[in-house]
Amino acid sequence: MTKILGDKKIVKINNEISIGENPVIIAGPCSVESEESLNKTVSMLKEVGVDILRGGAFKPRTSPYTFQGLGEEGLKILYKVGKSFNLPIISELMDEKYLGIFLKYVDIIQIGSRNMYNYPLLKTVGQTDKPILLKRGMSATIYEWSMAAEYIASYGNSNIILCERGIRSYDNYTRNTLDLAAVPIMKKETGLPIIVDPSHGTGRRELIEPMSKAALACGADGIMVEVHHNPDEALSDSEQTIGIDMYKKLFANIGR
Amino acid sequence: MTKILGDKKIVKINNEISIGENPVIIAGPCSVESEESLNKTVSMLKEVGVDILRGGAFKPRTSPYTFQGLGEEGLKILYKVGKSFNLPIISELMDEKYLGIFLKYVDIIQIGSRNMYNYPLLKTVGQTDKPILLKRGMSATIYEWSMAAEYIASYGNSNIILCERGIRSYDNYTRNTLDLAAVPIMKKETGLPIIVDPSHGTGRRELIEPMSKAALACGADGIMVEVHHNPDEALSDSEQTIGIDMYKKLFANIGR
Amino acid sequence: MTKILGDKKIVKINNEISIGENPVIIAGPCSVESEESLNKTVSMLKEVGVDILRGGAFKPRTSPYTFQGLGEEGLKILYKVGKSFNLPIISELMDEKYLGIFLKYVDIIQIGSRNMYNYPLLKTVGQTDKPILLKRGMSATIYEWSMAAEYIASYGNSNIILCERGIRSYDNYTRNTLDLAAVPIMKKETGLPIIVDPSHGTGRRELIEPMSKAALACGADGIMVEVHHNPDEALSDSEQTIGIDMYKKLFANIGR
Amino acid sequence: MTKILGDKKIVKINNEISIGENPVIIAGPCSVESEESLNKTVSMLKEVGVDILRGGAFKPRTSPYTFQGLGEEGLKILYKVGKSFNLPIISELMDEKYLGIFLKYVDIIQIGSRNMYNYPLLKTVGQTDKPILLKRGMSATIYEWSMAAEYIASYGNSNIILCERGIRSYDNYTRNTLDLAAVPIMKKETGLPIIVDPSHGTGRRELIEPMSKAALACGADGIMVEVHHNPDEALSDSEQTIGIDMYKKLFANIGR
Repeated sequence: MTKILGDKKIVKINNEISIGENPVIIAGPCSVESEESLNKTVSMLKEVGVDILRGGAFKPRTSPYTFQGLGEEGLKILYKVGKSFNLPIISELMDEKYLGIFLKYVDIIQIGSRNMYNYPLLKTVGQTDKPILLKRGMSATIYEWSMAAEYIASYGNSNIILCERGIRSYDNYTRNTLDLAAVPIMKKETGLPIIVDPSHGTGRRELIEPMSKAALACGADGIMVEVHHNPDEALSDSEQTIGIDMYKKLFANIGR
Repeated sequence: MTKILGDKKIVKINNEISIGENPVIIAGPCSVESEESLNKTVSMLKEVGVDILRGGAFKPRTSPYTFQGLGEEGLKILYKVGKSFNLPIISELMDEKYLGIFLKYVDIIQIGSRNMYNYPLLKTVGQTDKPILLKRGMSATIYEWSMAAEYIASYGNSNIILCERGIRSYDNYTRNTLDLAAVPIMKKETGLPIIVDPSHGTGRRELIEPMSKAALACGADGIMVEVHHNPDEALSDSEQTIGIDMYKKLFANIGR
Repeated sequence: MTKILGDKKIVKINNEISIGENPVIIAGPCSVESEESLNKTVSMLKEVGVDILRGGAFKPRTSPYTFQGLGEEGLKILYKVGKSFNLPIISELMDEKYLGIFLKYVDIIQIGSRNMYNYPLLKTVGQTDKPILLKRGMSATIYEWSMAAEYIASYGNSNIILCERGIRSYDNYTRNTLDLAAVPIMKKETGLPIIVDPSHGTGRRELIEPMSKAALACGADGIMVEVHHNPDEALSDSEQTIGIDMYKKLFANIGR
Repeated sequence: MTKILGDKKIVKINNEISIGENPVIIAGPCSVESEESLNKTVSMLKEVGVDILRGGAFKPRTSPYTFQGLGEEGLKILYKVGKSFNLPIISELMDEKYLGIFLKYVDIIQIGSRNMYNYPLLKTVGQTDKPILLKRGMSATIYEWSMAAEYIASYGNSNIILCERGIRSYDNYTRNTLDLAAVPIMKKETGLPIIVDPSHGTGRRELIEPMSKAALACGADGIMVEVHHNPDEALSDSEQTIGIDMYKKLFANIGR
């Protein structure tokens, strides 16, 4: 299906982490809420072990009336905390006009599910050399997702990490249906490393660990999980965010 | 669900057409291909009857390697042909950076399915006073779609026309599953006028007429159909584009 | 796709009603609850106008602990009330072992959504000469549904009426997604008459009328609706059952 | 949700195999084709290692014109071959009238996807004491599936093994979407052991191994796979059936 993508690809983050070799763990809060709160979460994560820090600054929210993230301020906090703990950071870019500050502050630019079909945005990040984490659209086919990656690659940037985060299905028991078969399929179709996000993929804390294990067992190159030092008080996605105890158990049980 | 939207709304186009009163027909080719070709199609449409001219200039395509539309050049052709036939025009805006030329050339800005969740774009068009046609995302819920409209309204622009264009389902007999129950539902939830697009909603020529009739029967404020003077040679969406004979029959049979 | 089915077919009920010519209305309660209750509902229906009486005696329920219908007793009540009002009756057969009493009491045997793939049951009713109403499976493709009808026909019985009752989709705003494009499609693929059930198809009273109109506008041969003299007290499917006032309005507005 | 089910349950097969303790492998051809063919496949399986033999005798097929299985003859062959290799057998019961021969010949009765909502059949097998393998309906919710198990249990038989076999989704790259989150969910909701069928769950040979590993990693109590000594010539489901070389590799790589 693809023309440029296809061969196995390792994506380097800051010449330190190689995504596509050993599995990585990306963890952090859904949203950056304050420097103090983020520091608390990250110091706990760091004690257990973590490879990359995630945190939302610009949040795509279904309602215009819910918390939209701290914006540029949030990005700076994430940058500062990342630096102080020596962790690369990833955050979601929704709007081309913030590309400059993303290039400056983040190590990986995330393109979220809602923007997988936003071709102008894909072209824009395709013209940078930043690693891009491309989430699957909420009902994207394998072909559409592969081609969204190809859009980025066709503009010159093949530093792409895929992220399976669940697809929309008919049952609302879980928030989404985690489609793990996409892991071996997308590796074969694109050669790109792929990360699994069991937090959005299930929407339920108790499923994070079993689905993380399953993801790694079928070849995922890492997992991305929402962790908060006090998950019940997280400003967004609280029901799918785990606390540090569950994270510790997860970390141990996936063999890290 | 909504705060601003809710009461019945009529959207005026150029002080001439009132969407939300009598049903309107929006017709035209999937893509603007050339001035000559568009002239040919529109002269035929005009002879039968048509209210608004549609035509894609910037085309969101799944593959980066297929025809992406004529861009600004296409928009100018659409504008010129619209003027010469005295028809208001609608075209899809994918990228904020072209807002200026859209404000100049088109009468209605279309936000396509792939951009229904593109909140920065919704905010941008919410700050204009142009009528906006907001297509439903390919697997958007009623709540998400209502809230996407509310995003636009919350930035000041309530001149919104909704467009049901089919949702993604498990059967590939049709391109999408036209969800006509969304017509009375969205009118109740948002008060906005709603147009149905049976071309994308089914992907099959022979279904355009029966589904147009069904749409109008359950309260749709109009239909939007892809028509080309030579549909088999259309550069995009050929299988769902009707020719002038089918259009004539459609026009007559929906009681216009 | 089909071998036997394909040509346009009119299904005769008791040599009186021809399904596939003028649209028919099938109405009645979700479940037969008592003779008194059914009499009350039917006398009201009869006053407005109705062609065929529906009523469930054997009810397929998701939970083994909810009301399962009155069984054979319910069928006898339905038969008696149908006779006294001179209305043909339809009821759902779930289990081959009751075929005998269905052949004796009902005019149309309904195969419900949950049994569309129950091939032994399809073969059984295919060996009778009773008219069969075959509902679409809750996520059946056009091909699967056509082939389920072909199963019945291949055993000798082509007196088949199809019934679109909504498919399963990702949004729970409505109970199901009414797929009206299936109306012209199934008529073309099988030649069989097709009825639309907006009660199950939407699960919401206020959508019965607009979706009935839409169904008839795209060629449906009739509608099947749940009506109860006191819908809020119906023992099953209360939220989608309309009362006699809404039925009267529906009847008038669909031009009967 | 359930009343009877809920506590952790081990299902014993012939007092030899305990499903719900160590993972088991159920393998065999989609359909029993002949004694010779089955012998060939099973002798190969036995050499590698296998716990339970599967084979279809009565096949639910979408078209009435495709191979429907050898019926009773097939069941006898399966029984004979199972005996000669000392393997318990499982086969699908579609029709209550064959219950007698199933009770006589098979060790586990399979209720297939198409019959998950066939409540009379569930009640019938609920009145036996045979172990029942209950496949998930092709678009069954967690609630519906749990309740289908509860139907069986409510009639007295709690020897139930669940089987996740993929759900229907919008992408036809795979035959179904394997919903592995259902593994921990159903164990929690019902306490029953659960098997995963990656053959139907993906429809593609190359995905059998990665998805088997993922299934076991998230807690599945075993896998069920379609194996044939010459998969390209299998009479049904050829594209998802693996040969003995792939089976050998699978067996080794899942740590058996």
